[in-house]
Amino acid sequence: MCGIVGVVSKSPVNQFIYDSLLLLQHRGQDAAGIATTNGKSFYMQKGNGMVRDVFRTRNMRSLPGHIGIGQVRYPTAGSSSSEEAQPFYVNAPYGIVMAHNGNLTNWEQLKDEMFRIDRRHINTTSDSEVLLNVLAHELQSSSRDGLTRDALFTAVSGVHRRLKGSYAIVSVIAGFGLLAFRDPNGIRPLCIGRFDGPSGTEWMIASESVALEGMGFTFVRDVAPGEAIFVSNDGEFFAHQCADAPVLNPCIFELVYLARPDSCLDGVPVYDARLRMGDYLAEKIKRTVKPGDIDVVMPIPDSSRPAAMQVAKQLGVNYREGFFKNRYVGRTFIMPGQAVRKKSVRQKLNAMRVEFQGKNVLIVDDSIVRGTTSQEIVQMARDAGAKKVIFASAAPPVKFPNVYGIDMPTRSELVAHGRTDEEVARIIGADELIYQDVEDMKKAVRDINPALGDFDSSCFDGKYITGDVTPAYLDRLEQSRKAPKAAPERDAGGDEGNDAGDDDRGSQLGL
Amino acid sequence: MCGIVGVVSKSPVNQFIYDSLLLLQHRGQDAAGIATTNGKSFYMQKGNGMVRDVFRTRNMRSLPGHIGIGQVRYPTAGSSSSEEAQPFYVNAPYGIVMAHNGNLTNWEQLKDEMFRIDRRHINTTSDSEVLLNVLAHELQSSSRDGLTRDALFTAVSGVHRRLKGSYAIVSVIAGFGLLAFRDPNGIRPLCIGRFDGPSGTEWMIASESVALEGMGFTFVRDVAPGEAIFVSNDGEFFAHQCADAPVLNPCIFELVYLARPDSCLDGVPVYDARLRMGDYLAEKIKRTVKPGDIDVVMPIPDSSRPAAMQVAKQLGVNYREGFFKNRYVGRTFIMPGQAVRKKSVRQKLNAMRVEFQGKNVLIVDDSIVRGTTSQEIVQMARDAGAKKVIFASAAPPVKFPNVYGIDMPTRSELVAHGRTDEEVARIIGADELIYQDVEDMKKAVRDINPALGDFDSSCFDGKYITGDVTPAYLDRLEQSRKAPKAAPERDAGGDEGNDAGDDDRGSQLGL
Amino acid sequence: MCGIVGVVSKSPVNQFIYDSLLLLQHRGQDAAGIATTNGKSFYMQKGNGMVRDVFRTRNMRSLPGHIGIGQVRYPTAGSSSSEEAQPFYVNAPYGIVMAHNGNLTNWEQLKDEMFRIDRRHINTTSDSEVLLNVLAHELQSSSRDGLTRDALFTAVSGVHRRLKGSYAIVSVIAGFGLLAFRDPNGIRPLCIGRFDGPSGTEWMIASESVALEGMGFTFVRDVAPGEAIFVSNDGEFFAHQCADAPVLNPCIFELVYLARPDSCLDGVPVYDARLRMGDYLAEKIKRTVKPGDIDVVMPIPDSSRPAAMQVAKQLGVNYREGFFKNRYVGRTFIMPGQAVRKKSVRQKLNAMRVEFQGKNVLIVDDSIVRGTTSQEIVQMARDAGAKKVIFASAAPPVKFPNVYGIDMPTRSELVAHGRTDEEVARIIGADELIYQDVEDMKKAVRDINPALGDFDSSCFDGKYITGDVTPAYLDRLEQSRKAPKAAPERDAGGDEGNDAGDDDRGSQLGL
Amino acid sequence: MCGIVGVVSKSPVNQFIYDSLLLLQHRGQDAAGIATTNGKSFYMQKGNGMVRDVFRTRNMRSLPGHIGIGQVRYPTAGSSSSEEAQPFYVNAPYGIVMAHNGNLTNWEQLKDEMFRIDRRHINTTSDSEVLLNVLAHELQSSSRDGLTRDALFTAVSGVHRRLKGSYAIVSVIAGFGLLAFRDPNGIRPLCIGRFDGPSGTEWMIASESVALEGMGFTFVRDVAPGEAIFVSNDGEFFAHQCADAPVLNPCIFELVYLARPDSCLDGVPVYDARLRMGDYLAEKIKRTVKPGDIDVVMPIPDSSRPAAMQVAKQLGVNYREGFFKNRYVGRTFIMPGQAVRKKSVRQKLNAMRVEFQGKNVLIVDDSIVRGTTSQEIVQMARDAGAKKVIFASAAPPVKFPNVYGIDMPTRSELVAHGRTDEEVARIIGADELIYQDVEDMKKAVRDINPALGDFDSSCFDGKYITGDVTPAYLDRLEQSRKAPKAAPERDAGGDEGNDAGDDDRGSQLGL
Repeated sequence: MCGIVGVVSKSPVNQFIYDSLLLLQHRGQDAAGIATTNGKSFYMQKGNGMVRDVFRTRNMRSLPGHIGIGQVRYPTAGSSSSEEAQPFYVNAPYGIVMAHNGNLTNWEQLKDEMFRIDRRHINTTSDSEVLLNVLAHELQSSSRDGLTRDALFTAVSGVHRRLKGSYAIVSVIAGFGLLAFRDPNGIRPLCIGRFDGPSGTEWMIASESVALEGMGFTFVRDVAPGEAIFVSNDGEFFAHQCADAPVLNPCIFELVYLARPDSCLDGVPVYDARLRMGDYLAEKIKRTVKPGDIDVVMPIPDSSRPAAMQVAKQLGVNYREGFFKNRYVGRTFIMPGQAVRKKSVRQKLNAMRVEFQGKNVLIVDDSIVRGTTSQEIVQMARDAGAKKVIFASAAPPVKFPNVYGIDMPTRSELVAHGRTDEEVARIIGADELIYQDVEDMKKAVRDINPALGDFDSSCFDGKYITGDVTPAYLDRLEQSRKAPKAAPERDAGGDEGNDAGDDDRGSQLGL
Repeated sequence: MCGIVGVVSKSPVNQFIYDSLLLLQHRGQDAAGIATTNGKSFYMQKGNGMVRDVFRTRNMRSLPGHIGIGQVRYPTAGSSSSEEAQPFYVNAPYGIVMAHNGNLTNWEQLKDEMFRIDRRHINTTSDSEVLLNVLAHELQSSSRDGLTRDALFTAVSGVHRRLKGSYAIVSVIAGFGLLAFRDPNGIRPLCIGRFDGPSGTEWMIASESVALEGMGFTFVRDVAPGEAIFVSNDGEFFAHQCADAPVLNPCIFELVYLARPDSCLDGVPVYDARLRMGDYLAEKIKRTVKPGDIDVVMPIPDSSRPAAMQVAKQLGVNYREGFFKNRYVGRTFIMPGQAVRKKSVRQKLNAMRVEFQGKNVLIVDDSIVRGTTSQEIVQMARDAGAKKVIFASAAPPVKFPNVYGIDMPTRSELVAHGRTDEEVARIIGADELIYQDVEDMKKAVRDINPALGDFDSSCFDGKYITGDVTPAYLDRLEQSRKAPKAAPERDAGGDEGNDAGDDDRGSQLGL
Repeated sequence: MCGIVGVVSKSPVNQFIYDSLLLLQHRGQDAAGIATTNGKSFYMQKGNGMVRDVFRTRNMRSLPGHIGIGQVRYPTAGSSSSEEAQPFYVNAPYGIVMAHNGNLTNWEQLKDEMFRIDRRHINTTSDSEVLLNVLAHELQSSSRDGLTRDALFTAVSGVHRRLKGSYAIVSVIAGFGLLAFRDPNGIRPLCIGRFDGPSGTEWMIASESVALEGMGFTFVRDVAPGEAIFVSNDGEFFAHQCADAPVLNPCIFELVYLARPDSCLDGVPVYDARLRMGDYLAEKIKRTVKPGDIDVVMPIPDSSRPAAMQVAKQLGVNYREGFFKNRYVGRTFIMPGQAVRKKSVRQKLNAMRVEFQGKNVLIVDDSIVRGTTSQEIVQMARDAGAKKVIFASAAPPVKFPNVYGIDMPTRSELVAHGRTDEEVARIIGADELIYQDVEDMKKAVRDINPALGDFDSSCFDGKYITGDVTPAYLDRLEQSRKAPKAAPERDAGGDEGNDAGDDDRGSQLGL
Repeated sequence: MCGIVGVVSKSPVNQFIYDSLLLLQHRGQDAAGIATTNGKSFYMQKGNGMVRDVFRTRNMRSLPGHIGIGQVRYPTAGSSSSEEAQPFYVNAPYGIVMAHNGNLTNWEQLKDEMFRIDRRHINTTSDSEVLLNVLAHELQSSSRDGLTRDALFTAVSGVHRRLKGSYAIVSVIAGFGLLAFRDPNGIRPLCIGRFDGPSGTEWMIASESVALEGMGFTFVRDVAPGEAIFVSNDGEFFAHQCADAPVLNPCIFELVYLARPDSCLDGVPVYDARLRMGDYLAEKIKRTVKPGDIDVVMPIPDSSRPAAMQVAKQLGVNYREGFFKNRYVGRTFIMPGQAVRKKSVRQKLNAMRVEFQGKNVLIVDDSIVRGTTSQEIVQMARDAGAKKVIFASAAPPVKFPNVYGIDMPTRSELVAHGRTDEEVARIIGADELIYQDVEDMKKAVRDINPALGDFDSSCFDGKYITGDVTPAYLDRLEQSRKAPKAAPERDAGGDEGNDAGDDDRGSQLGL
């Protein structure tokens, strides 16, 4: 998963994009990058690590201009190892920089085509570099008679025809303006903000509304699936539907876990969705657990609080914060000749004994991925004196990989893959385990925005919207994950900082 | 305020102390330092910034040995500018490294004495360097016939006689062992942990129990006021009361705000104390606010959650998290010729509209210091649609500076100094404002540990336990705060990171 | 001026190119860069500063592959500000990285053409980026039917037709091999080396033979003017003349000052050329100065030693080293509120009193550019007790800017521009001043390699070989030098280190 | 060996000391440090590496004050591994910072005494830290009735009585002034400079006169052996002889190789001494080599030039520079899985074929230590076509270790230890080898300053002036050199830069 932002401003945008990326930092903490332009030249700074670690004063000084884009990045499964930080740049035609949130499922075939037909070299194994070159190729064709808005929109249409997978895009064409678009399924979010300032109207495109609002912009609307937005250098705004049959199928995992609760995606305030999921989860718990069998309801901070609060309210049981989260996390240094202490969940979470002692505790988490964290949490609750530990997941069982831009482990690592709820309960050590139902999860969202049809809920139900994700594809994908990186098992990795090693910033290829 | 830790282990302590400091990071984010010894030589690494920023692999490799101490530091008002990171070192007698939590109120006079009588040069304006030299001087006297445990304890007695103020100390005497002690009022916390490992018993001294427990040590007990602990190089443990008339007067602000909720200080689980303060606060609210006049109770994340939850429970009103905290905070870069955008509370907190819209909201915070943050929060609640905003503080009005190691603004900056509750309510814009009563706050703590007599609650009631804090002293103190640094107005500064500038680490004097 | 190197090896080339760049470091100390390839992807690392400062272990680890190029760079007058470090990269067609030594005199027009006709965006004001895009464009045309050697050579022919100015080039086409070529006048040097190792023949292209030989390669020959060399990924070597009417007109300033004395350029050992220039200079001195009027001959270390030794020998006068050069040079820090001490030649050179006291001294320098250094040197000689100071320049008066890749000051800054020798003598304070004659300088070189016809000696005689350098061009050039950087006034700047500021490496745009 | 400097100025001294250290950089390239004071507090910055690498703008800004000292350091054999950078600091009595050039031969015994008698902890194995504590102890005793000049000088007398070995010292006593002194044998150099500026007289003490003169100060005189100099904070100058029977026995190796040729040590211009050694060497060569058997005389740049020039002149043979020195040296990176190319003398020196081809060459070096470099040089001469290679050393055979502060290899590593000249000639591969005679070397110096009696010439004749260096001492010394560091085998290591590894600066203990 990634967070992206683009802006056409009336004043320098370096600090502005930096601040925006901080508001999207929860969407990606592996790398960060900013590209700006003064209309003619591009300036770029990117590197591994969190926003606060990648940019220093000297970097910011090298980012002049009133137009720019930025990205924060998580590693995305379903694609290559993708060690490149974004944005990417191509110089022909016109000079284009681009940042991408999502994942292309047909990038290998496209890379091949790009080289064979267009003699375009793709230097990395990043699907985003492929995407940029497809865009460049289409624009080269569509703009033979000049670089116009129509040429741009025609190019995006061409891009839609060739790409499969998910993509929300911000890009800048040198000397022309900001182009943003969203895939025809609208899997990854993208929204539009405006600010009417003293020097005129400024426009901002971002992954989540919280970035717009946090920067003082007004939320205008979401980008429609398949739609392209163009904001000229001068700040003129244009929108055009570039897909043939766009359908909105947004990723429901955004609402479950990924997005910030204070964002609003495709008409759904994330916080409200999580509350509503709590309602449905409470209904199911009522059907399953004996009344009076629960003394207290507890969230795992921070992400499951809304659902847990609502469960508590619906059950009429006390809501208590029994776990305290340690936010300061450091590194494990490799010392010659010293054994490495294993870091456990216990260094990140601590149980308040007074809340557990002698009680039947219902722990609510947002989801269960590998199950290892849940197992440790259940054990902590027992160690703190809990009589009985009931575990509830605000999301249904995660049984399938995500190929649309969320880094999930392989099927065999997903605790719920091929197991019944009871088997999972046994593995995590809970006395009882209640999962949300898939349909309830979707209903929870539709209760808030009835206009929504279906979702990308593939990691729960194995249905891949783009139609090209076969079992063979998944097998190949999993085999390519030789050295799998940690999946976003809860927000445990939240404040991690850069554990990658000393001084690793800036070592990226400068291509 | 600071966090300190000392350990006599059977294996290398560099990573161990690093991890301990992370568990105490909430106590100080300005600087961090570690000193270790292999029995003969000391090794030290310290610098400005958070733990994760100060130590790199090469630094850790330069910290060999099985014994060591560490510190994280906040700027302490009431003392000098104190730009020095700790630990400090003196080489005569014996070689001593030391880290200090607290603040001496008579350090200037002592510095003078040290030089006049003992010809000891104090290189900085840090009271901690003075303290170390007083210890060194006393030890020089007491150990004329040899460096023994008795000589150590005699030295600590001498220290107690000369120092005024607060101090919890960990130190190492080269080739001898770990010495820790706490001032005769026990103002700042200090506790003892042990670990019975395969190679024998290891001992740990730390500011808070959470550091012991997080590292797998068992909490043994608090260090008594005036008591000194000595752990020899071999791991033998000794304790001795070195003060004439010790009385436990712990800082109550630790329980209100500073300490981690999962710590237990002087027999009081912090979390429980905050819950209980919530109970008393609820009682007062009941007396003040009309029943039915509150639709929802909300904490300011993260520190006021326990009190708020308890208030909600006692009032029988819904507890909701209406504010979301953004944990990723960066810097404001100074760009030549660009205006600097002011960062506001809004970049750190966001209000969930659904929780405010049309409601009478009771916002519970742990305390109110300057009032500026409270003011912004009230406004945010109103902007989010709140019909009525009632504000409650789990602590009484903060009216006086703290001279015992907490960086507080001057009296004139404290919103409650010289103002009635109604005046403060008007300033922060709340419809109503309910403060905890001083006696209720103390009762809340004594309900949990009836053995506790009085507290240092000087910032609330202006009573300074050490007897030497006169109005003239306070005047002088406030005048010396020429360029006052940000006070810990709530935990707003929590995850700030190092805003001090580029590459500032390591520039400290190497004395 | 710059130094470039390219190699097709049988083993990793990162350290190899690094070491080669050190051997060429005298050709450029402003920036350094390396690009390598494993056949498919390119890896690049570049930054401001000297080789030793730009590359660290982590950078070197990010440069895998058996094929690569490198560059060290001086700022080149006659071109734009050129703040970009090399190599440069374009991804279409095929993926090309390139490094350039020289300067294009028609780059602005080409940049325009590139965009108008080919829609290629040039992101910087570097003529080298323009050059790479011209090459890319020509290759795109010539390789429509496939990427073959012929297509490559055709592309180089096209490049020759379009470019004006000087250029020696090394580049790599991804998955294909190493391409190197030299402009049809052969202004800048380029030579070929081979190494027959256990795994086959390896090829190396470099600016100077010293780089080949220092790396254990055998010097094969110089690249002919207009010629292109292609070494396939597998190490097959091909050469082709791509220019219509190539004529060798090498830059004579390389022999006078720029190249290392232990290099051999176009059949001329540099050291020998400098000795021979000493011979001619001695002849002229004999005609000018009274016999017996010179007690001692002295060089300015290091570059004028060969000429001075030869002058001494021919005059039958003692050769002595009266000046000692301080090789350790640091920075001048800007301290708030402190005045900056001006650094003078005296911190770099020191006069041995014993060699000057009461003597008539003949000081031989390689050339005189601005005259300010010469002036200080003459004064130092007088201060050290010299009775009479005669100054001789092994090169003729520098009267015109160099537009082919050497950073020279504007005409008005050249002390000999528009002045007689006597006037210059007066300005630098010498009792007498003897300049080499232009024809003697050329004869000196032709004595060694009679096959050489003419030279680029434009800075001495104002004749610009490429025919497009008009007075108007020079005017424009000089006007664009708003903030002129220090010219290579002798090798005074030799060991300068990176004065640019703290931590400036890595801040370059990553395009 | 080390270089030291101290200054009492009327303006900030940070840049001043930095520049001075650059002028002394040839005396030590392993570490550098500066301590300054504003009269009350000390500020210090030190680290591993060369001056240009240790100090950055932020460091310089942390060095306020008008008084300060600095040091550059080589590793000193004869002492411990000494990984600590200087200056050192003790806070009792008064606060003292100190930098030391030399080596104590009885530091281990003193360290013991210091702890036993004075309970002073010495944290490192640096003899300099011991020395500082002896000074501190003596000052503590002598100043019981107050810190006066007399007390200072009495303390230095005490120091002289206790120390054995060599020491030139600069130190600052906080709030008092600058103290400098030289051991009673005057083994290491130290001299005095003054500057009469607009704000009064400023004083400077430095290892070599070149540092004084390069900074615009006037050389006043050398510090006498045993003498102490005190300059008060206000700039008042005092001198006092503190030794009982001082005799000047300066290290003759300074004149042979270590000192800069443009320095003047104890009345001997170094350059003149080297010329004169050339004269005596020429005499010996005349007695040994057939006339006409030498075609050309060549130095090894840079240090043997004066001797070689003089040899050439006396023999009436051409002086030529046949070797070119590459000044840009980098690092060898350790790449996983890659073999490391051995760096040889050939990457630092290159032979000009034209000067060697078919000639009988006399190569003059300043000295021969291990012989490995000489061997490579002889081979290079032969490879370049020399018919015959005669080697001459301007110094006598180096047969014994230096225990007075020069890092020499053990006896077994010294090629001349226990070998005849013929055997050494055979080992280095020379056709003939002529060494300077010990008496001629001394005469050469006395010819210039007849006032000089004897020298420390221990590495040539094995006579150790301090009387305490027994064979047993040398045995012990050599055994302690487990991992011997590179000796200053010529100036091959001259411009090395910091090969120690990435980012190593600043990792030193901050004690």
